[in-house]
Amino acid sequence: MSTFITTFKEGNKEMKQQLGGKGANLAEMTNLGYPVPNGFTIHTSACSLYQRDQKLSDTLKNDIKKHIQTIERETNKNLGSKSNPLLLSIRSGAEISMPGMMDTILNLGINDEIAYELAKKDPLFAYDLYRRFIQMYGNVVKGIPMEKFDKIYDSFDTINTDSLLTIINDYKSLYQAETKETFSQNPYHHLYEAIESVMASWGNERAVYYRDVNNIHNIKGTAVNVQTMVFGNVDEHSATGVCFSRNPSTGKKELFGEILWQAQGEDIVAGTHTPLPIQSLISKKPELYEQLHHLVYELEKHYKDMQDIEFTIESNRLYLLQTRSGKRTPQAALKINRDLFDEGIISKKELILQTNEHDISGALHAEFNIDTVNLATEIGHGMNASPGAAVGRIAFNKEQTLDYVENGYNVILVRHETSPDDIQAMDQAQGIITAQGGMTSHAAVVTRAMGKPCIVGSNDIKINNQNEVIIGQKTYQKGDYISMSGTTGTIYDGKLVLETQQKPKEFDQILNLGNKHQTIKILANADTPKDIKTALLYDAKGIGLVRTEHMFFDEERIRLFQQMILSQTSEKRKIALDKLLPVQAEDFYNLFKANGSLPITVRYLDPPLHEFLPNSPHAIKSLSDDSKISVVDLKKQIQRLQEVNPMMGHRGIRLGITYPEIYTMQTTAILIAALKHYNENPTIQLNINLMLPLVSDLKELIIMRETISKTIKNYESKHQVSFNIKIGTMIELPRACLIADEIAEHSDFISFGTNDLTQMTLGFSRDDIHSFIDDYGQKGIYKNDPFKTIDTDGVGELLKIAVQKARSIKPQLPMGVCGEHGGDRTSIIFFENIGMDYVSCSPYRVPNAILTSAKIGFQ
Amino acid sequence: MSTFITTFKEGNKEMKQQLGGKGANLAEMTNLGYPVPNGFTIHTSACSLYQRDQKLSDTLKNDIKKHIQTIERETNKNLGSKSNPLLLSIRSGAEISMPGMMDTILNLGINDEIAYELAKKDPLFAYDLYRRFIQMYGNVVKGIPMEKFDKIYDSFDTINTDSLLTIINDYKSLYQAETKETFSQNPYHHLYEAIESVMASWGNERAVYYRDVNNIHNIKGTAVNVQTMVFGNVDEHSATGVCFSRNPSTGKKELFGEILWQAQGEDIVAGTHTPLPIQSLISKKPELYEQLHHLVYELEKHYKDMQDIEFTIESNRLYLLQTRSGKRTPQAALKINRDLFDEGIISKKELILQTNEHDISGALHAEFNIDTVNLATEIGHGMNASPGAAVGRIAFNKEQTLDYVENGYNVILVRHETSPDDIQAMDQAQGIITAQGGMTSHAAVVTRAMGKPCIVGSNDIKINNQNEVIIGQKTYQKGDYISMSGTTGTIYDGKLVLETQQKPKEFDQILNLGNKHQTIKILANADTPKDIKTALLYDAKGIGLVRTEHMFFDEERIRLFQQMILSQTSEKRKIALDKLLPVQAEDFYNLFKANGSLPITVRYLDPPLHEFLPNSPHAIKSLSDDSKISVVDLKKQIQRLQEVNPMMGHRGIRLGITYPEIYTMQTTAILIAALKHYNENPTIQLNINLMLPLVSDLKELIIMRETISKTIKNYESKHQVSFNIKIGTMIELPRACLIADEIAEHSDFISFGTNDLTQMTLGFSRDDIHSFIDDYGQKGIYKNDPFKTIDTDGVGELLKIAVQKARSIKPQLPMGVCGEHGGDRTSIIFFENIGMDYVSCSPYRVPNAILTSAKIGFQ
Repeated sequence: MSTFITTFKEGNKEMKQQLGGKGANLAEMTNLGYPVPNGFTIHTSACSLYQRDQKLSDTLKNDIKKHIQTIERETNKNLGSKSNPLLLSIRSGAEISMPGMMDTILNLGINDEIAYELAKKDPLFAYDLYRRFIQMYGNVVKGIPMEKFDKIYDSFDTINTDSLLTIINDYKSLYQAETKETFSQNPYHHLYEAIESVMASWGNERAVYYRDVNNIHNIKGTAVNVQTMVFGNVDEHSATGVCFSRNPSTGKKELFGEILWQAQGEDIVAGTHTPLPIQSLISKKPELYEQLHHLVYELEKHYKDMQDIEFTIESNRLYLLQTRSGKRTPQAALKINRDLFDEGIISKKELILQTNEHDISGALHAEFNIDTVNLATEIGHGMNASPGAAVGRIAFNKEQTLDYVENGYNVILVRHETSPDDIQAMDQAQGIITAQGGMTSHAAVVTRAMGKPCIVGSNDIKINNQNEVIIGQKTYQKGDYISMSGTTGTIYDGKLVLETQQKPKEFDQILNLGNKHQTIKILANADTPKDIKTALLYDAKGIGLVRTEHMFFDEERIRLFQQMILSQTSEKRKIALDKLLPVQAEDFYNLFKANGSLPITVRYLDPPLHEFLPNSPHAIKSLSDDSKISVVDLKKQIQRLQEVNPMMGHRGIRLGITYPEIYTMQTTAILIAALKHYNENPTIQLNINLMLPLVSDLKELIIMRETISKTIKNYESKHQVSFNIKIGTMIELPRACLIADEIAEHSDFISFGTNDLTQMTLGFSRDDIHSFIDDYGQKGIYKNDPFKTIDTDGVGELLKIAVQKARSIKPQLPMGVCGEHGGDRTSIIFFENIGMDYVSCSPYRVPNAILTSAKIGFQ
Repeated sequence: MSTFITTFKEGNKEMKQQLGGKGANLAEMTNLGYPVPNGFTIHTSACSLYQRDQKLSDTLKNDIKKHIQTIERETNKNLGSKSNPLLLSIRSGAEISMPGMMDTILNLGINDEIAYELAKKDPLFAYDLYRRFIQMYGNVVKGIPMEKFDKIYDSFDTINTDSLLTIINDYKSLYQAETKETFSQNPYHHLYEAIESVMASWGNERAVYYRDVNNIHNIKGTAVNVQTMVFGNVDEHSATGVCFSRNPSTGKKELFGEILWQAQGEDIVAGTHTPLPIQSLISKKPELYEQLHHLVYELEKHYKDMQDIEFTIESNRLYLLQTRSGKRTPQAALKINRDLFDEGIISKKELILQTNEHDISGALHAEFNIDTVNLATEIGHGMNASPGAAVGRIAFNKEQTLDYVENGYNVILVRHETSPDDIQAMDQAQGIITAQGGMTSHAAVVTRAMGKPCIVGSNDIKINNQNEVIIGQKTYQKGDYISMSGTTGTIYDGKLVLETQQKPKEFDQILNLGNKHQTIKILANADTPKDIKTALLYDAKGIGLVRTEHMFFDEERIRLFQQMILSQTSEKRKIALDKLLPVQAEDFYNLFKANGSLPITVRYLDPPLHEFLPNSPHAIKSLSDDSKISVVDLKKQIQRLQEVNPMMGHRGIRLGITYPEIYTMQTTAILIAALKHYNENPTIQLNINLMLPLVSDLKELIIMRETISKTIKNYESKHQVSFNIKIGTMIELPRACLIADEIAEHSDFISFGTNDLTQMTLGFSRDDIHSFIDDYGQKGIYKNDPFKTIDTDGVGELLKIAVQKARSIKPQLPMGVCGEHGGDRTSIIFFENIGMDYVSCSPYRVPNAILTSAKIGFQ
């Protein structure tokens, strides 16, 4: 075996890193005894060297020549021979497939003399082959625009030997004019140049951009496959085709593909000829169909996955030119995996490991038809706050939204940022886009809970007034149509085609299997009974986070809450709280009822109080009317509560310390709800965890724990009951990680709020990073979005310290993560590794998290 | 020795924890053979027990009785004996002196019968003694107001035996009316009740408040001293007095004190009699003066500190009743210490260790006369942002300030918060008070650099308009007088008396000594040549932090800087930067010139850009006029740059990454300045450190370091010079601590910005904590202000991790702290312990820091 070249006979499918995907699979098929034309693969490492030297070394050239000579011996054909010419295809193939690189050059080896000789047998075939080669070589290797070749070709009404000869001459003149060189007659010259072109294309702009965007940095080059040509265009018993072992849209087990008679591969792509369905082969060439069918399913069994195969029939002989795992829709992916398992082709372990997280979430959300996306105009980007796709008319406020919805239109709500006042509009809109705000902004959090697409913090949006917005370069009026993908964060002009997905039955089947093999436990964040129902539908093991403040965002409740905030004395505050108490109690009762005996973790009020007060003059006026506080006074009070850095201000347990009556009201509401639940469902024991947020000092925890415990004890003894209630800490500050041993001593559980912890550890305000995060991405600072995937070096290090310290005091202390990272694959694996017991994520991310958790166990 | 009682003969001065200061010193003097009346001390631990049980145990009572019996044997007097009565004084005395506790009961042991017997010898003395006892006991033990006793006493024109007997009767009636009990005739009853009263007073409101405010939590109770009475009022050869071994105001070595003939201790305090200067004793009783003089200086030598002594002369015999270190002014303190060293009484080590940091800083700032403070009305509080005291008329803006100053008045500038527009007014005002802002707000930082008193974030202030402010409960108009202490954060009504301090020559002498023994190096933060001069005057070892943004706050510069910020394109920004370049270069040149060859660390631009843009409509209009940008557009741009959490936003190295041209301009300015300095002072080699702030990821550092290095190399090669420039990192984010090893590899030094690090680690925004920090203080959460004294559990832990990681890569890497903690005693000790090389603090804190550093070496 040479240093830089491996023949198909020498390789196998495990050698992708060296041979690329295409080369490795060609070698594998060769060794399985399948009909693969003779050839060899130049290693990816040769491409790396080429990137350095910008030319092929003489050693490599000699090596290539030696391998060509072997092929010549084995095929009895010679490169450049008039009588018995060897023609070759040159194709790129990296370890993973990626667009942007030079792909294929066919028919290499032909020249004037050889064409002339071949023409003696079949002039149309011979000259067409030569014409194709000049065209492909000129275009791919020399960069001559394809239109210029097409223009020449299209100027002939009929194609016959004469016209082909004229075309060849015109092509050569075009080649000479464009390259300032004569079209070479030396096949080796062509061969080396073609190989160099493939290698050079690794470094072209589009390929580099693709790798950057997709964070592909560990692959150093493409392999180059050199293979004996077989001809799908040699006679009427010849054809070229593509087929899948299963239907990529539905997952159904059937040969699915197309065949084009008397043609070469590029003819299918070019769309100049209309191929037939692969099934047409059944009647036309039953034995060939049988052979293809057999080979395809042999390959599928061998690779244990649905295959996408390229083939050529040359004079009734079938050749395989490529096999790979076929792309498919999320629905199809789930069905295929499940079917492969049922058919005994893959084991349960393989089923779980092979099921892709993207397919799980893809099967849950409506997305755009992929063809319309390719044709669509992207007008802007933002943070992908909540997945799914939506199409609708632009509305800027509640009135507009309701107006459109009443008239039967879909709406996309476009706002600077949202506030509790917008809940109704958000509920009615198909999707939400905000100019400001980050992944934990009101819009982001609320829409994720609603399972509704949302884009936040888009710098491309400038709202001029309540009738007009500039998105990117274009101005849109109220009522204009746009489309948005909350999955990718992209905004499109006009109406894209939505494909509403049917959740396939395999979704549940696979997750049920995974569920049984969970390692780290998957809980859900939920704020409403509806959220809980969704979470339990997806088999969450309980509720890891109830954000009680979200209960107040409801339009009616918020007035009571605002009244509480605006109370200037502890007495007045108590009066307002007394009004809130039955409301909260009823809320908790409904949550408890929905959740049953599974654990449920309720977080005490967390955000700064000013978040509940209005911003807009209109909303302030409205609150003034309702609260009988003058607008001037109200503005003063709002001003007084404003903070310079609210993220690090008066919130979390700090509210509990300064206004203990608020936390006591919440505790009492929980107790009332628990009692009601007990009276109505005496056989179901609730499993309640109360969580104190933003703890930074032990004393805070001790004080609040004592206050809460006292309230519980008093209530229990008054009502002669005993509840199963635990009190724990939410760790979201670096300091809390560093004193986790002290905290553990006074906590029944610890839950890490990794969103805020990331903000504090990195000093990144999610609401503000938009101003520099693009530059950071481009310059390769923070390769992964630390708010999506846990930053293991910084935040992860703190988590490790915290887990270690806490376990040193209480080895069995339940510890987990609630926060966006709880739904992220890489993060879940990290959390499991450092010893967390559970993660809690939004209900729609639970299925994926369960899958990841199961995979960990199998790996 | 008993468990709870130690006699004066058994104790010594090291036993303060058990015996309190008074008891330990009485024992020490007894054992030195000095004339101390016989007695014993009940331990502080007995007081702790009393706090628990709320009564004296029988065991303790028996123990007390036993010790009384010993005294009786030794003095030949008996408690309750008519013929030979033992009279006692009962005095409290904790480990450290504190106000609020019950102090003294004299003459205990007397009753009707004993008074009658004593009266046979000297009726006036005897009945006056009894009268005193009823009064003191009734007041101190039973809480009967002193005025009621005084009223009875003052109703008699002459005091003779008859009137005294009437007074005693009236006192008893008063006693009975107030306490509903007959005045007891049992001395032991009095004794136990007096002791209980002393112990109970440990828990009274004033004492608890004092301990809370002064953070005294490790002392668990007061001791009680029971001592045989000696009588300064027994005859005309008797007196009571107080004297210091040195003058507490000037430090001069002289007996300084007062003597009152034929009186008891409380007569001096009551002010009813006018004492004579202690010197009067020279002529009246030369032998006694000689004896006192001798004893006082013996004691001073023994205690190695200036002593404050209480004495009584009973019939020409001198008794010592207390000795302790005397309180003194900062000036006196420095002189006394220095003199004690010169006189060979203390060693150099003792001089350094005994010099108090408060005295060092006290000697630098004007403060209020202590008597006027006691009489003054406190009207509000805020954060003590910059020390010193000031008195002046209230002004709300620049115009008012300049107006008053021109007319010869002092001004205190009162504002919501300050901005660069206010620099001129701040410069002219005597002191600044802001309603908002924290310890790193503009006002705080600028005034500290100016060495001018400042209070920030005062919740007690409500500015109604530019003519009126409510402070606490009272409304003040423009021009009204207030006083303020930036040292304590207190605002006073009206004009207090300021005492401008003369820096004593001993200040420099002591610091020079300390300087030689520095352990951790002391550098200074400085933004102007004036700051540098101050810093070098105090012997800073260089400049650890130059905040370049402060250069832009100057009124003229800021327009250029604003122009740069408002540039929408990189090109326009460059034009604005080109205008700033020569200005910055000149600034740097002046800094370098002032600093010479000492190290100087320049930090690149750090704050978010919107901090440089105006807020008020007036200032926006003015900028609009100057910049030719419409007010509407300007407001939009200001709005666009606003951030939700600016502390965690687009600032620090993030500015450098997104606008590299800004940092490159600053680098170039430094190079131009260095070249000019080299050309003009070729023999002085500058020692320049360039510091990148707010680094959180390695890649940020690598990118910026490369950009800066390139600029330096190009400049050096163009001008054929070579500068001594190092590039380092400012660590102020938790994540940076956790990757300090990676950072160290690419840094020539590391400086920890502990202000921001504390904010991020604790999730405390200094600008916002005012809303809850009072509650936190009262509830004992965060015992020390973490922005003043380093939070060792959290921030300190991160620093330890960082130092360890960094040193694992570069064992010799220079590391230090720049930030407010750099000037704090406890923090400096911690930094030294964990291996920091230096701290850098504001110039006025350098002397103290040097002292602390020297102390570390001696301890």
